[in-house]
Parts: sequence; C-alpha cells; structure tokens
Amino acid sequence: MKTLIVHAHPEPNSLNGSLKDLAVSTLESLGHEVRVSDLYAMNWKAVVDADDYGPAASNPLRVARDSGRAFDAGTLTEDVRAEQRKLLWADTIIFQFPLWWYSMPAILKGWVDRVFTYNFAYGVGEHSDTRYGERFGEGTLAGRKALLSVTIGGPESHYSARGINGPIDDLLFPIQHGILYYPGIEVLPPFVLHGTDRLTEQDYPDVAKAWKERLLTLDSTDPIPFRPQNFGDYEIPSLHLKHGLEPLGRKGFELHVRH
Amino acid sequence: MKTLIVHAHPEPNSLNGSLKDLAVSTLESLGHEVRVSDLYAMNWKAVVDADDYGPAASNPLRVARDSGRAFDAGTLTEDVRAEQRKLLWADTIIFQFPLWWYSMPAILKGWVDRVFTYNFAYGVGEHSDTRYGERFGEGTLAGRKALLSVTIGGPESHYSARGINGPIDDLLFPIQHGILYYPGIEVLPPFVLHGTDRLTEQDYPDVAKAWKERLLTLDSTDPIPFRPQNFGDYEIPSLHLKHGLEPLGRKGFELHVRH
Repeated sequence: MKTLIVHAHPEPNSLNGSLKDLAVSTLESLGHEVRVSDLYAMNWKAVVDADDYGPAASNPLRVARDSGRAFDAGTLTEDVRAEQRKLLWADTIIFQFPLWWYSMPAILKGWVDRVFTYNFAYGVGEHSDTRYGERFGEGTLAGRKALLSVTIGGPESHYSARGINGPIDDLLFPIQHGILYYPGIEVLPPFVLHGTDRLTEQDYPDVAKAWKERLLTLDSTDPIPFRPQNFGDYEIPSLHLKHGLEPLGRKGFELHVRH
Repeated sequence: MKTLIVHAHPEPNSLNGSLKDLAVSTLESLGHEVRVSDLYAMNWKAVVDADDYGPAASNPLRVARDSGRAFDAGTLTEDVRAEQRKLLWADTIIFQFPLWWYSMPAILKGWVDRVFTYNFAYGVGEHSDTRYGERFGEGTLAGRKALLSVTIGGPESHYSARGINGPIDDLLFPIQHGILYYPGIEVLPPFVLHGTDRLTEQDYPDVAKAWKERLLTLDSTDPIPFRPQNFGDYEIPSLHLKHGLEPLGRKGFELHVRH
C-alpha cells in the first residue's frame, strides 16, 4: 500500500498531530510506504492566484481555463506539481484535520483549490450535451481510496440525524462526494472523533486504539457506495437521478448513495 | 443601511468583480453606507496560526482557547480586529464569491477561520448541561442580515433536488446555518448564478438586472426561517429536534428550517 497523508493542523503537539503520527507508524509497521504532506510545516500557500499558472495566466485571469493550460504545459508551480505527483503515486489518501466551521481548515481548502486543477481533477473527458465528463466514479484519480480522519469539538448528538448541526454524513458530503469522488477516488467511511473539546490525556489510549483498528482494516473496508455518473443512474444532460431509483419527492445528499 | 461586502475573487475584471462593483454602486445610490473587504486586494492571510494570537498564544497552541484569550485581551492581530469591527458596524453583510469545489474559496474560509474567534463568534453565553451557549439565532452578531451572492460554473439542474451535486440549499447549509446563523446573523435567500462557465458578455445585462433587483429589495426580503436553538424546538443538551416538529425518520438539513 502507498499512502499519502494530507495533514492540516498548526500544532504538532495536538490530537490531530498525534493521530497523524500514529497513522505513519502503524502503516509503516505493516511495511507500507507512507508520504506526508504536512501543510502547516510546508508553509503551504493557501490562495489561488495568477502566480500559480506562470505564463499560462491570462489577463484577465480565468482560473479554470488558465489552470488547465498550465497543467497541460507543465508550468504549474512546483509545489502544486509535487502534490499532483503524490496523488498519482498513492493508492490510499488519508486527510487528517479538525472540523472548523463545519468544513476543512482554509489551508486544506487551499490545497484542494490549487492542486485539483482543470484537466487534472475536473474538465476530464468529453463535455457535451450527451456526456458531462469523466467524473463521479471516473477520472484521473480513479483506482484510489481516501479516508477522512476528522476531529470535532462538539458532542456526537449535535451531529446526528435530528441534531442541530445536521448529520455529519451530510456535512462531509461536499468533501467526500464533491471533492474526492468527483475525480474518481473511492471514499471509505470517515473516522470521526466527537467531543474533542472535553477530551483528556486519559481518553487518548481508547482513541488511539480505535484509530489503529481503522488503519489496520483499511484494505477490507468497503467504500461508501456513491452512485457513479455514467453508468445508468442519471439522466443526461440534466444529471437528475432517474425516476424509480428513489421515490419521487425524496431529495438531499443521501439520494446519491446506493442502498 | 450599513453594508459590508466581503469579496473573494482574484480577478477584478471578472463576473464576481462586476457583481461586487454593482452592489457598491447600487447601494450607494440609495444613500446607504458601504464598506468592502476585498480579500485578494487586501492580501488577506488565509491561515490560522500562533501569530494570530500574540502573547495569548500558548505552547502547545490551542486554537479555540487561545483565540478567545486574545479576543478578550484585545491582542488579536489588527487585520482580524478590523474585520470584527466592520461586522459590528454593519447591519447587512454580502458575501460575493465563486463556488469552488462545492464551497467557498480558501481565502474566504480563512477569513471565517481567523475572524470568527472564540468569545466573539462562538463560546458566547453559558455552556452547561442545561444550556449550550447563545448561538443559532442569538449571539454577538444578532440583529444583522447576510446574503450569499454565488457564481457556479455548472448548470442549475445539476444542483436541483435530484441533481448529482445535491441541492444548492444543502450545499450552502454549512455556510448559511453553520457559519452565519450560528453567531446570530439572519440569512436571506442566496443570489445564485448557475452556468457561469458558458455565460457571455451578451448575458450580462440580464444578470446585472436580476442582481440589482435583489439589492433593491433587501429590506423587504424575509430571511430563511432557521429554527433558533433556545426557544423550544430542541431538546437540551442533546440538541435533537423535538418529536412532533417533523415526522420521525425524516432527517437532513431541511429539518432545521421552519415550514
């Protein structure tokens, strides 16, 4: 197994830092190759701008088109190209981050915004009235698996089916389905730690045990069965889920998971 | 009316830039005061780190606690304090941004991560087993209204009830409910432009007309009726929506909107 860990926490001596370190040691002890993109340690540039595209940047800047031209010409900045190479090298990608304001820390969003360029992560395949690209189950990163390892300050009940924040599966859907499944990555069920605001040193051994168990069983864990775009579940070009697959009137993110 | 526009696009000569400029001129022509936080032009620091908290930063860094200490002591960095003052000054806040990977650009997420500190945007009010803070309808920013103005490359059908990306209301829920309603801001229905990848110069007059109409009717627009936390709709401390308010078995973000 070749695992890339993308880590997004400013403090090495933190719960997130410990979980990242435990993932490295656990996977390496199994003989797997592990690489880490520690975004804070790398001083990762979080913000998309014209500097990313070198001579492919047009004036006025057009982010999608220019990023695709720079990708094709090989003139993306070296930090972005290095991350794209790591993604192509890996068969498994683990994202370690705290949930800040119901989503990823900005530094990690900036990794996505800059690394997932046009012609690499989107704009792949034929886009026409009868076809809308190779995405959601197909794409450049098909054949890879990803896992979110997320720490959450608040208690689990607040993130349950009727909890005030909404279900955690729905909060993570824009990441798991929108960012990861889109370029073809299969997504394993997330490892979510709740109530970390009140977690103490005494709680850590149980947390570490649970994380280690997830890491040791990555190979035998089934991915979330998101519906692929181009294999009959959706009308083209509306990309509406076909009638009959779910009752009419039902809506929301869960429609896009096969049950 | 005192309006703060938070703008997040790298190219002034873009659709987002034009919509921002149109908001400024339209609101000023009505005699309103307008201030703009143009995050790219300000070279906004997108990444939370110990530098944000001055002498209140502890070692190891603890983001929530340290940000609250720095807020209380007035030692947050001047860029963050200036944004907090603008939020307190404004009665209306407009966010202008493109949807990148189903969420905000990293620079805007970094504005939230850094400006919405503990004791300012969260950690406000009593937190105990019988009460979980003043949030979702109450909080530091209560009495204000916000509006998202969002451009989306793909077509509207892909973001409809049965569309492959999920409903746009659900994709925006973590921002509208999780980020804005949480510290007390009422949220107006968003202004969403779909299909901007294929938009041409010829389409702009219609777009501008629709945006101007929304701006001219801000005062008479009802906010999204999110359910406030502390007025009887939720069990404490689980913060489950009470039985009877929605059918058992129903779940998802829409439970938290009164119909």
